[in-house]
Amino acid sequence: MAGEPRLYCRFDLGGTVYQGLLRGNMVDLVKGDPGGSLEDLRVSYPLSRVRLLPPVEPQTLFCIGRNYADHAKELGNDVPEEPLVFLKARSALLPPEGSIEIPSWVGRVDYEGELGVVIRKPCRRVTEEQALDYVLGYTCFNDVTARDLQRKDGQWSRAKGFDTFAPLGPVLLLAREMSPQTRVRTALNGKVVQDGRLEQLIFPVPRLIAHLSRFATLMPGDVIATGTPEGVGPLTPGDRVEVQIDGIGTLSNVCIPDA
Amino acid sequence: MAGEPRLYCRFDLGGTVYQGLLRGNMVDLVKGDPGGSLEDLRVSYPLSRVRLLPPVEPQTLFCIGRNYADHAKELGNDVPEEPLVFLKARSALLPPEGSIEIPSWVGRVDYEGELGVVIRKPCRRVTEEQALDYVLGYTCFNDVTARDLQRKDGQWSRAKGFDTFAPLGPVLLLAREMSPQTRVRTALNGKVVQDGRLEQLIFPVPRLIAHLSRFATLMPGDVIATGTPEGVGPLTPGDRVEVQIDGIGTLSNVCIPDA
Repeated sequence: MAGEPRLYCRFDLGGTVYQGLLRGNMVDLVKGDPGGSLEDLRVSYPLSRVRLLPPVEPQTLFCIGRNYADHAKELGNDVPEEPLVFLKARSALLPPEGSIEIPSWVGRVDYEGELGVVIRKPCRRVTEEQALDYVLGYTCFNDVTARDLQRKDGQWSRAKGFDTFAPLGPVLLLAREMSPQTRVRTALNGKVVQDGRLEQLIFPVPRLIAHLSRFATLMPGDVIATGTPEGVGPLTPGDRVEVQIDGIGTLSNVCIPDA
Repeated sequence: MAGEPRLYCRFDLGGTVYQGLLRGNMVDLVKGDPGGSLEDLRVSYPLSRVRLLPPVEPQTLFCIGRNYADHAKELGNDVPEEPLVFLKARSALLPPEGSIEIPSWVGRVDYEGELGVVIRKPCRRVTEEQALDYVLGYTCFNDVTARDLQRKDGQWSRAKGFDTFAPLGPVLLLAREMSPQTRVRTALNGKVVQDGRLEQLIFPVPRLIAHLSRFATLMPGDVIATGTPEGVGPLTPGDRVEVQIDGIGTLSNVCIPDA
């Protein structure tokens, strides 16, 4: 028996960071290594009483652009011949329920709902066949992007690197693999605006890990954001944006103005 | 009296990481915070006996492209209207004297000697006038770049993100400011191939800090690589490349082949 899929989280309680496993509306306190064994400390908290943090602390936040054909098309881009890699600043990480700050001076700011893959152990030059053995699990990610700056700058680091532009969570599904039918949906103020399935990824997860690990050593906790389906659109202060992935949950953030 | 400029370093001795201050050919063991106070532990080691590490562990490695007019020109690029920001993967960091691995399959790989600025305290939205108060010091950096991949990919993260493509060190000059006449030189196998002065920076250090901190919170230990002067050129296995900056020292690395 494989048992229930485990949903790992990190949370803050009174200023201290704890690890937990989500069980319904309760968080069971655990300690240990989510990539190894986790000890149940036999203490539980109502989810409503804890403040969730991003489930991991990546050393590097690798992202992939134009990995759904329909999304490449909607922005007038060709489908790339190999995975298009960029990095997102770690300082942009935002916890579940954190507020996305929309700067007033950058023009349009878009949501981009995505599946995030988390690395389990150091990973260098692995084949596609080996790749999934290096996966700790999966979570939701929002690759928030200042679209006008992205076009203007050419390099995307600034447009995607603003503080709060990298919401991650709410939990990490501890699993090596996701079903190809898994849906990645984004809702804006309750209305579904993006709806993709993982089978639509031009370069699936094993290919991404093989590609990245050919040049960089991926480290435990590193995140690979796998790209966004079609349907990107602008965020304005007051909006609530939710990235929902089957089997993981919903990453929900509100937008606030920022000078 | 300002006293001697202090050259801070980190080093490995028998598997443990220590902090030190360089004094001639000796390293004086210290403990504490290089941004605050350092206590002299009254133990010294010959420099030849320790293995230097990168002087800081950045959370983010911010880099600036095309920040010397002559270099922009040599690669056929216009001078940017504002600083051109990109990120380099942390996993690419290489200690002083570490070997740069030249992959056989990527075409041309170039050296790019640069001044690296290290941040002292969290820095968000500072003005140019305030910026230097957030500087811990200065070191040498080599923004090694797979030039053909850089052109092919469009985004530079892969071309500049290979393991070993970010040599940093050998030491950190603890200072708020460098003289505009400071020379940044690169030597390839003993021959000077790049020779710039900081006064040639299109966007000087305070402007870079103001620009970056407008979108991202810079953290202690973060590095800003300020861009490379003209004279970039290819590296091949067996080469020794040295980045030398007045008042800091020489960052020296050999190149080795890598499948």
